[in-house]
Parts: sequence; structure tokens; C-alpha cells
Amino acid sequence: MKMYSAWIITIGNELLIGKIINTNASWLARRLTLLGYNVNRIVVIPDNLNDIAETFREAVNKNIDIVISTGGLGPTFDDKTSEGLALAFNKKLVINEDALKMVREKYVRKGWKLTESRIKMAKLPENAIPIKNHTGTAPGIFLKVNDTYIISLPGVPVEMKVMFDFEVINILKKRASKYYYSEAELTCKGLPESGIAPIVKDVMDRFKNVYIKSHPRCSELGQLIITIHVTSFGKSRSEADKNVSKAVAELKELLGKLGGKIS
Amino acid sequence: MKMYSAWIITIGNELLIGKIINTNASWLARRLTLLGYNVNRIVVIPDNLNDIAETFREAVNKNIDIVISTGGLGPTFDDKTSEGLALAFNKKLVINEDALKMVREKYVRKGWKLTESRIKMAKLPENAIPIKNHTGTAPGIFLKVNDTYIISLPGVPVEMKVMFDFEVINILKKRASKYYYSEAELTCKGLPESGIAPIVKDVMDRFKNVYIKSHPRCSELGQLIITIHVTSFGKSRSEADKNVSKAVAELKELLGKLGGKIS
Repeated sequence: MKMYSAWIITIGNELLIGKIINTNASWLARRLTLLGYNVNRIVVIPDNLNDIAETFREAVNKNIDIVISTGGLGPTFDDKTSEGLALAFNKKLVINEDALKMVREKYVRKGWKLTESRIKMAKLPENAIPIKNHTGTAPGIFLKVNDTYIISLPGVPVEMKVMFDFEVINILKKRASKYYYSEAELTCKGLPESGIAPIVKDVMDRFKNVYIKSHPRCSELGQLIITIHVTSFGKSRSEADKNVSKAVAELKELLGKLGGKIS
Repeated sequence: MKMYSAWIITIGNELLIGKIINTNASWLARRLTLLGYNVNRIVVIPDNLNDIAETFREAVNKNIDIVISTGGLGPTFDDKTSEGLALAFNKKLVINEDALKMVREKYVRKGWKLTESRIKMAKLPENAIPIKNHTGTAPGIFLKVNDTYIISLPGVPVEMKVMFDFEVINILKKRASKYYYSEAELTCKGLPESGIAPIVKDVMDRFKNVYIKSHPRCSELGQLIITIHVTSFGKSRSEADKNVSKAVAELKELLGKLGGKIS
């Protein structure tokens, strides 16, 4: 039983000039991890057709199971995600009737016309399925390519989050992870990271299903405060929890013996 | 005169499980942009040797001028950046005497021994140059491969930032950007993003050296508040500033005519 892999692709020049901190990526990474997927790459690319096409193609070539993108779905000229998907997989970009209906309803309610910029949001790669946008106008895109599920969401955080929790979650059910994630965090005072490194390695060698990562809270030579984060994916929630709690107990004992103060 | 390209590679499982928001990437992206470099990719990868090697190799294969990485330089088993660089470019991993001196001095001052975990931080790919870490222990790594400058910094934000501002800046001088960055931001009230889209496109078509991006502050159909961000790289600071201010003046006029309230 293999674990499903996931990539997050966030599209937007504003991320690459450092104007915006990429909270979309960390929010999605957290959600996907808690749902039992293995997120193994986050990529930030510009609003550039070739970069978009190339990155989606790379994910499909690597047989990534779930690819979620944010950004590039709006009405402006530099919203190029849909066109990028079409280019990547040699598909026609067509007005999707379901998507057009979604867009039309939003504007009709306001008494606004369907201009070219607005119709643009309903142009999807052929065979794509639009995803309902509850709080904004641009529909998301669901496209299967080979064994990869591609899900493109808007970059506006509130729109992206609502769509993920109400729509994407249903798409993911068809490819639901059979794994469960568990985690715990310890704080160790009084030992430097280089001092606890051999213990972390030893415990990880003996507890094969856990990953342990130490994060110095201050510098190695300043105040000695390290948080130790223990994670595990298991085939049931209780298995994942047990993996973590066993490793935590072992870490507490060994670090305590070395003089660490654990909390 | 070509613009120098830059990639930012941030290494660490904690970013991929959504535990940490990637503020290092946005901080570096901002710094590099203000220094006149074109950041065209940010990649987040796990603490995995092959992912690290593959990503650095990809950047070199694409002739990226400046590659800055964060993370994976510490004393623990899963700090694999140096080993990843060696693997990527078929170099031996050797104890670098200058790096060892830096590491030794830090610990000697504390009266601590040079354990294996600590010596590990002085193992660099052959021909690499260590970068002084002012506030922590693990030295950074400067490695030239073909025409690419690779600069690896620690993931601890305070260490990374001090090293960038005091050390990396001197390395970059050898490859100093000849471009200058300028930007301005307008707020437009009373028009939807789909309504201003044609104006944005028109102004960008006529002012070739600027990039204009609109960001809806609320949803397209809710309160109509859009920020419009105008950026330009120029061959002098005044040229970049002029590019931006001309486009801003044009945008103000056209959006005002359409009924937008600009501030």
C-alpha cells in the first residue's frame, strides 16, 4: 500500500519579489499532511506560461498523485494557469459550459455583463471539471492526467480555503490516503543540538516509522533550547499515535540521562 | 546586458508538513529583488539527499546565476545540504580546514569537544568556500559550478539573515546586478478586478518595461477594493523610478475615467 504523494505549485510574481509570504503553501501543506498525503515539493513560479506548463508536466512525469496549485485563475491577462495546463498536456482551451454558468450566475446577480475578461475565467482545458468558488468568481479546475489529479485553485486565500474544505475534499475522497499522520513536540533545555544529534539518530534508527527533527530555538551556543518534533504516518490512527508515543518515551529517557530538561 | 536570474531552494521537512511558514524564502526573495536580481523560482524540498542533489543540478543545468539555499547545514543526521551538493556535482565531501577552524573556535570558547556531529558541519564539497556564521555554528557554503554561484545558508532565520547581510552581500558584489528595482502601489475602490483588467493590459502593452499586477483585497463581487502593484527593473535607479511613475500616472487617469477612486 503506497503512500500518495503531493505537490503544491503556487503561481504568482508577488511571491517571487517577496511581496507576499506564501501562507497558501503552508496552509495546504498542513491540510494535505493531516489528510495522510506525503507533500514532497512546493514550487513557486512566476505568471509565465512556459514555467506553468513545465512545472505541471514535471509533476505528471514524476507520477505525483495529487497536485494542487494556487493562483492564476482570475480575469486579468497574467492569470495563465488554465492556459498553462492546456499547453502542458496538449489540450485545447475551450469555454466550459458548466464553468460559464458558474461565472454568469455571479455577474447576473449583480446586473453586470459577461465581458471578455469575465468569460476568460470559464475557459478550461478540454475534459477539465470546474470547481465551485463559493466566495469569489473564478472557478477552480480539476483535471486528471495519467494517474495524476491536478486541482487548481485561486490565489486569494479566503477563496482557496473555502474551496479546499468544501469541494476539493470530495475530489480527494476518490483518492483518499490510507495513511494517518501523528505528531508530538518536546522541548529540551540544557543540551546543544550537536549534543542531542546522536540520540536523535539512534532513536530514528530503532523506530523505523518515525521521523524526528530537532529545531534549535536559540543559537547552538546561546541559550540551549531545542524543540524536537516527532512525526509518523501509520496505517491506522492508533498505529501512528503509538509510533510517536513510543519514540517520545525513548527520547525523554535518553535525553534525560544526558542531563536535558524535557517538557 | 542580461538580468541575473536567481533561485531560492529551501530545504526542510518542517516546511512540507506545514509546520513552518516559509518566511526565509520571502525574506530572501525581497532582498534579491531589491538588489536587482530576477528571482524566478522558489523550491521547497525535503531533507532527502536525492531531492537536494537533483534540485541544485537542475538550477545549474538551467544556467541560473545565483542559487541561494537555506537549511540542512546543522549537526544532525538529516542536515544533508553539503552532502547533496557533493552528490549533485560529483565532488568529494572533505573536511574543509577553514570551516573546521570556524567550528572549532566556537566550541573551544565554550570548552566543548569537537564530536563527530560537530565536525560534520565542517565537511564541505571540495573547492567550496565556507561562509562565516556570526550568530550560530554551522558555516555556510559558497560553491561555483559552471556559471552558477551556489550559496547555502542555515535555516535558522536569524543566522541566515545576518550571514546574508554581512557575508553573502560581498560574494554577490562579484556578480552584482546592473539593474535597479522600483515599485509603487495604488488602491482602487469601486471597480471589480474584471473591470480593470483591460486597462491593466493596455497600460502594460504600452509601457514595455513595467509589470502591473492587480490584487483583489476582497472578493470580486463583494466590496470593490483592488491594490495595483506596479514594478520595473531599469538600468539606473532613476530609469526604474521613471518607468513606474509614468505607468502609475496613466493608470490613475484611466481608472479615474472609469469611475475608480484611486489612493
